[in-house]
Amino acid sequence: MSDATLSVDNPVCAKFVFYAAVVLLKTTLMSLWTSRHRIAKNVHTSPEDYRMTGSKPSVSLDPHVERVRRCHLNDLENVLPFVLIGLLFVLVGPEYSYAVLLFRLFTGSRILHTLVYLNEVPQPARALCFGAGQVVMGLMIWEIFSKTSF
Amino acid sequence: MSDATLSVDNPVCAKFVFYAAVVLLKTTLMSLWTSRHRIAKNVHTSPEDYRMTGSKPSVSLDPHVERVRRCHLNDLENVLPFVLIGLLFVLVGPEYSYAVLLFRLFTGSRILHTLVYLNEVPQPARALCFGAGQVVMGLMIWEIFSKTSF
Amino acid sequence: MSDATLSVDNPVCAKFVFYAAVVLLKTTLMSLWTSRHRIAKNVHTSPEDYRMTGSKPSVSLDPHVERVRRCHLNDLENVLPFVLIGLLFVLVGPEYSYAVLLFRLFTGSRILHTLVYLNEVPQPARALCFGAGQVVMGLMIWEIFSKTSF
Repeated sequence: MSDATLSVDNPVCAKFVFYAAVVLLKTTLMSLWTSRHRIAKNVHTSPEDYRMTGSKPSVSLDPHVERVRRCHLNDLENVLPFVLIGLLFVLVGPEYSYAVLLFRLFTGSRILHTLVYLNEVPQPARALCFGAGQVVMGLMIWEIFSKTSF
Repeated sequence: MSDATLSVDNPVCAKFVFYAAVVLLKTTLMSLWTSRHRIAKNVHTSPEDYRMTGSKPSVSLDPHVERVRRCHLNDLENVLPFVLIGLLFVLVGPEYSYAVLLFRLFTGSRILHTLVYLNEVPQPARALCFGAGQVVMGLMIWEIFSKTSF
Repeated sequence: MSDATLSVDNPVCAKFVFYAAVVLLKTTLMSLWTSRHRIAKNVHTSPEDYRMTGSKPSVSLDPHVERVRRCHLNDLENVLPFVLIGLLFVLVGPEYSYAVLLFRLFTGSRILHTLVYLNEVPQPARALCFGAGQVVMGLMIWEIFSKTSF
């Protein structure tokens, strides 16, 4: 029997659960961050939103709101695949310290990515954070393919 | 050995499988709902779509199509994180009746969210549905962090 | 005890891990493909991207970049739900050859969908690829509901 189960008895899985929760929390918080900017700038998505505030639609796009939205979308494009790839990666039984290193690298790179994006830090800062996450996912997929077959 | 495994032998997991399937079905149906509106309004995304229907692109955006699209995107932003957070939550072994309550609350809030969004029910109805889902995810993440460590 | 566990000891799960990794790899590669087109066409999302290249924002939308972006979004809308539905499907213990057939059909339909979309193959090619994936997910959800309860 493989001991690479999805259970907190499996130390790799226990660590994965923690880091996956961190990046998922970060992703869901982006929704609230967008709402905060929409209210502050009075830029909403639907007519009923304007009816509640009693205001008129002004501009359809605000650069700050759009920035937070792009940052949120980037999380959906990266964090959700990471958690799914991570679950598969835990199942193929990676070496403990290597796995934890990858989980920490990804989590760190995504938190940094958000700080860089929202504060408009000059490029290539954002590209490097994004790239670090992509490399981690590539290494995990490499490990998965090396231990499974079509 | 923890009995908080991902298996239908674990009652919490069995319930999770059902409710996660409900909200994922709801999310994938949004694609078909968008297609239905695109065809009815003849508002497509790509030139080859217009070549098939033999029509010309009229307006690039239609308010009904855009409403369904926003509703679909909102599901991707909320339902996919919920299912992932839910898997992690099952792994940390929550109390059965508490867990089922959270699964039902989330599922109900998302079905209501879609009805409210598509029928343009005045705010704050949509904001409350959205908020209920966020609170459920927050409680699950709280439970995960209380039982794992970095 | 159910033997429908999430473990590579479960043959259905082992196959799922492989095919889920294929479609997730495909999805994450779409990010890099978008970046490649953004750089080639000099169409970026944020002011700091233009500051790095020392160029001015020209048009805000380029048809090639938008096509790759739509293709990427379509993957997020289909591949991520497939992997989640697939995990639940593995847990309800489907018949091995049926399950592997569904995994292969979905994976094939999504690879074809991308080739069709990026090469602007006339409709209904893209609609058929999309539909095949939706049918596979529908069959999986049917199986899940037939073995779980609210």
